[in-house]
Amino acid sequence: MRLGLLYSGGKDSTLAALLLSEFYDVTLQTAHFGITDDWKHARSTAEATGFDFERLELDPDVAHEAVDRIREDGFPRNGIQLVHQHALETAAEREFDAVADGTRRDDRVPTVSRAQAQSLEDRHGVDYIAPLSGFGRTAVDRLVEETLDVTVGPSGQITRADYEAELRAIIAEEDGIDAIGEYFPDHEQTHVTDVR
Amino acid sequence: MRLGLLYSGGKDSTLAALLLSEFYDVTLQTAHFGITDDWKHARSTAEATGFDFERLELDPDVAHEAVDRIREDGFPRNGIQLVHQHALETAAEREFDAVADGTRRDDRVPTVSRAQAQSLEDRHGVDYIAPLSGFGRTAVDRLVEETLDVTVGPSGQITRADYEAELRAIIAEEDGIDAIGEYFPDHEQTHVTDVR
Repeated sequence: MRLGLLYSGGKDSTLAALLLSEFYDVTLQTAHFGITDDWKHARSTAEATGFDFERLELDPDVAHEAVDRIREDGFPRNGIQLVHQHALETAAEREFDAVADGTRRDDRVPTVSRAQAQSLEDRHGVDYIAPLSGFGRTAVDRLVEETLDVTVGPSGQITRADYEAELRAIIAEEDGIDAIGEYFPDHEQTHVTDVR
Repeated sequence: MRLGLLYSGGKDSTLAALLLSEFYDVTLQTAHFGITDDWKHARSTAEATGFDFERLELDPDVAHEAVDRIREDGFPRNGIQLVHQHALETAAEREFDAVADGTRRDDRVPTVSRAQAQSLEDRHGVDYIAPLSGFGRTAVDRLVEETLDVTVGPSGQITRADYEAELRAIIAEEDGIDAIGEYFPDHEQTHVTDVR
């Protein structure tokens, strides 16, 4: 069975790929709006880990809608959620039997409720799978420790391909570089460099 | 890392074992109250699938508490939930780094909320993992189809080792065999016979 996994090059989505590869032919899907080249970081990690890789082109209008939402809210959560749902819908339209993401039990964003999962499945005739949603933070950290080589750092400096990078780029261009700090609190991000 | 998985010999817990075995040393834990020998069905499946197997002895008082609850409610859900929580607590007291079960996204019973999971983890210093909680019914069915040899039949006739068998036995002894039908609606159960 062919499965498309939303992939950032971070530890969660890499671990999800390893878990799913037992049962599915996994193709990593790195979503991007064509704004920056950050998707190439995910491609590097994909090459290191040996998984098939594809770009998942998203609608740039959704990026601007997400940025509007982030400005309005003053924080990124709902904007990022919007992009994630759009990415799942886009992946579900491709020729996969199942689509998946790396959301964990303790994640606050993005999240996919049971009703949203069922709706995605019914409308597109695919399975939606969140293989890490039954794993807490500590369990994920322990598995990562055993399985992956990881670089950790502040979210602005780590070279990975999550949605934030391109949304930050839009805000920097339209509102100036200082506006980023207003909307995106600093937090640790990870970039996987290899599988052990 | 050593992981104890609550195990009935059914398709969900067998699939959970296969998923987790990529990352953990899995020992199947079949909970029982010492009332019937149904745990032996799970041992047969464990032997067929090649996983380590242990009995998990539960407190018979909890079985009677569960039966009282089922009589009071007129349906088994809350009684079974009670037994499942007791089984998780008992497994968490053993020498495992993690405990797990085969609950799926669409299951209504047993369920383990995020708060219950966190509480179990904090009190016992273990990880709690529900590897199938990010998989819907269709996804599980497709994986089972590809991976396992399964026998399906009405819940009273299938030889597996879920909590129901012993609770039914108590009710049959105390209230007569006809009382079982009052509390336990007929539903399909599965028993795994082999891994493909």
